[in-house]
Amino acid sequence: MDTAAPLFGPHLKGFPAACAPLSREAVGQQDWQLLRGDLALPLAVLKQSALRHNLHWMRDFCTQRGLDLAPHGKTSMSPELWALQLEAGAWGISLATVFQAVVAVRHGVLRVLIANQVLQRAELDALARLHVESPMLRSFFLVDAVGQVDAIEAWAAARGFEGHFEVLLELGIAGQRTGCRTADEAARTAARIAASPVLRLAGIECYEGTTAHCDHAKDRATVQGLMDRVDAIARDAIAQGWFAQDEIILSAGGSAIFDLVAERLTPDLGRPVRGVLRSGCYLTHDHQRYTRYLCCVAERLNLRETLKPALEVLACVQSCPEPGLALLSMGKRDVAYDLDLPQPLWRADGQGGAPRAVPAHWRIDALNDQHAYLRFDASAPRGEWPQLGSTVASGISHPCTTFDKWRWMPVVDEGYRVVDAVTTWF
Amino acid sequence: MDTAAPLFGPHLKGFPAACAPLSREAVGQQDWQLLRGDLALPLAVLKQSALRHNLHWMRDFCTQRGLDLAPHGKTSMSPELWALQLEAGAWGISLATVFQAVVAVRHGVLRVLIANQVLQRAELDALARLHVESPMLRSFFLVDAVGQVDAIEAWAAARGFEGHFEVLLELGIAGQRTGCRTADEAARTAARIAASPVLRLAGIECYEGTTAHCDHAKDRATVQGLMDRVDAIARDAIAQGWFAQDEIILSAGGSAIFDLVAERLTPDLGRPVRGVLRSGCYLTHDHQRYTRYLCCVAERLNLRETLKPALEVLACVQSCPEPGLALLSMGKRDVAYDLDLPQPLWRADGQGGAPRAVPAHWRIDALNDQHAYLRFDASAPRGEWPQLGSTVASGISHPCTTFDKWRWMPVVDEGYRVVDAVTTWF
Repeated sequence: MDTAAPLFGPHLKGFPAACAPLSREAVGQQDWQLLRGDLALPLAVLKQSALRHNLHWMRDFCTQRGLDLAPHGKTSMSPELWALQLEAGAWGISLATVFQAVVAVRHGVLRVLIANQVLQRAELDALARLHVESPMLRSFFLVDAVGQVDAIEAWAAARGFEGHFEVLLELGIAGQRTGCRTADEAARTAARIAASPVLRLAGIECYEGTTAHCDHAKDRATVQGLMDRVDAIARDAIAQGWFAQDEIILSAGGSAIFDLVAERLTPDLGRPVRGVLRSGCYLTHDHQRYTRYLCCVAERLNLRETLKPALEVLACVQSCPEPGLALLSMGKRDVAYDLDLPQPLWRADGQGGAPRAVPAHWRIDALNDQHAYLRFDASAPRGEWPQLGSTVASGISHPCTTFDKWRWMPVVDEGYRVVDAVTTWF
Repeated sequence: MDTAAPLFGPHLKGFPAACAPLSREAVGQQDWQLLRGDLALPLAVLKQSALRHNLHWMRDFCTQRGLDLAPHGKTSMSPELWALQLEAGAWGISLATVFQAVVAVRHGVLRVLIANQVLQRAELDALARLHVESPMLRSFFLVDAVGQVDAIEAWAAARGFEGHFEVLLELGIAGQRTGCRTADEAARTAARIAASPVLRLAGIECYEGTTAHCDHAKDRATVQGLMDRVDAIARDAIAQGWFAQDEIILSAGGSAIFDLVAERLTPDLGRPVRGVLRSGCYLTHDHQRYTRYLCCVAERLNLRETLKPALEVLACVQSCPEPGLALLSMGKRDVAYDLDLPQPLWRADGQGGAPRAVPAHWRIDALNDQHAYLRFDASAPRGEWPQLGSTVASGISHPCTTFDKWRWMPVVDEGYRVVDAVTTWF
């Protein structure tokens, strides 16, 4: 991975076509001002002050609870953002695949938690090689079945692999995603891992994120049930001598009800426990789905302030073809649409004027590949109609599926001046 | 845009992590066989034979009707695929934004139809520069409002721009996307274009794709109504002397009911008419939405064969956590989900075994960012259950939103051996 060459250039959507490729440092020195139309829209931007706030908020959240953070790097797939997270004290970076781990390690990350099953031969080859390339690397992946251990051992035998991989046993919830459903199955799998020369059982993992309902009692009950099972299998594994080391890793945590799992990640097991939270969306947060989740977190923790939305997508009003309808120059290629459609936040004239909140009746109700349909009340005064050529910024719902639509994103200050930039490696 | 360096390497999802960067030619010589697990999954692949079939099918469709093809390049954003389309006789490449046009022109495309409004100053700067870089370039974009012409003229005055842009007047349909709604508005806009020193009216454009219902009578009525309007404004513009050249371009055509607009793209206007179809999805076609649309095309044209699906996404069965549920190693980052969820097609053992059709009861009913939920009938014989570590290939619905999830795609032969590869530039 050539990380020395200038990473930013006109091969990137939104980068000025006439500009030569630039280093990251140089991008921040161009004085590009989005409010005066210096860059073509659409453009997804990261707000520097909100990023900083969120980094500190989550660092403090973990520190206060004696937890380690391995933020889920699949959210952004951005080495520059991972570096910020590590500088803010993150213990490692979580990832979803070996490919993602390769990107992270080749950008200098030395502790990767692959929060997923690994069993493909091509993935095991890549992971083994990564450890040869980076002798200081510590990696973990998930195991949830005896059959997975069989597959890994078959690969090791075929390759003459004499090393080992550190793994976490995954517990899952019936009807949900991956992970052992029963205590029996979990014990059988843990014993199988412990007996394998290729694997070392380093801890227990689960994922509660897909169960969140924003219903305190229900969410708490789900998490308590799951973490009770983590606790039980951890005690069982200690008693049976299945863990490879004295320190035991317990890991959980999406970005929705992470406060509930956090309460249970450092139980007294009579052994050193490293509780690792894997929240990924906290860094940019959003204006919709995760804002609702964090309102619940704030209620549970009695907080007045939590995370701040750091990601906005700016578009241009490219056509106003009939009263009540304007078309924005952004579509499914530019902004998340899997949880909610983008939500118009502010507008500006695109010629240097300051942002103003959009009228309450503005609403995006559909996206095509390259267009957004902005509906508004045509009986409102003309001043409340979208203006051709002006800028409309939208908040998103779900950072992950917005990041994966961009190969770079500028970082902006409060005045939407570009002060930095990040790449993504999807 | 550095197009000389090896474009393929381990920075790409699915590319072998241990492999040095390769040229396109070298990728095709590695003897990578997907059925024996040489590359990590998920992986979106293009079937060479289907691509070739589709290229020829659409070339013949246009040739037989005296039409030109400017396939919509936003579908794939792949210069290698655009080159195939141009080699197969395409007149130019359609694109959705100036950024996309910059990518195309810097990869050697010399005729670009930007099927969208251009009015942002940064986009006009880029387009003007592109013509300086490539004096042989012919570009077109859409205009649908007098206000857009005002904005372009203001830009030209501010920049001292003394050239001109060729544009097409866009007609739109009430309640649909961009484009003039009424004959009056269209005439006013055409007259304004004709009077502008910065613009040249080259033709008329419309887009019928979002109106398709797979109801012959309804679809035909919509298209006839729209094309009647195109006809009327074209005659009006001829009478008024608004066209800048003798030859008039008429352009329409998504990938759903393109046969209906094709009938109306070369009317006798007493002037040379170039009818330009812009279908983009025909090249890879798909297994769901566009297959349904093409069934209607086949009915209308009384054809036994039309397009063949060329795009499949392969994934690995990474977990079988409970009866009736398997998790595949692909998610929202890997496969389209905006029109329909992926549809399992075939399975193989991933160790060299041949593909077999999946049982009829297999169905993907949800995606997370990195996972697919494959449901199956747990009362079926064990041989019909997904096997841990095996390969499952899925058909897609909507090529555009699958392409934009990949920075490269291997091209495979009938035995799923990699014989070529393409890049994408989203």
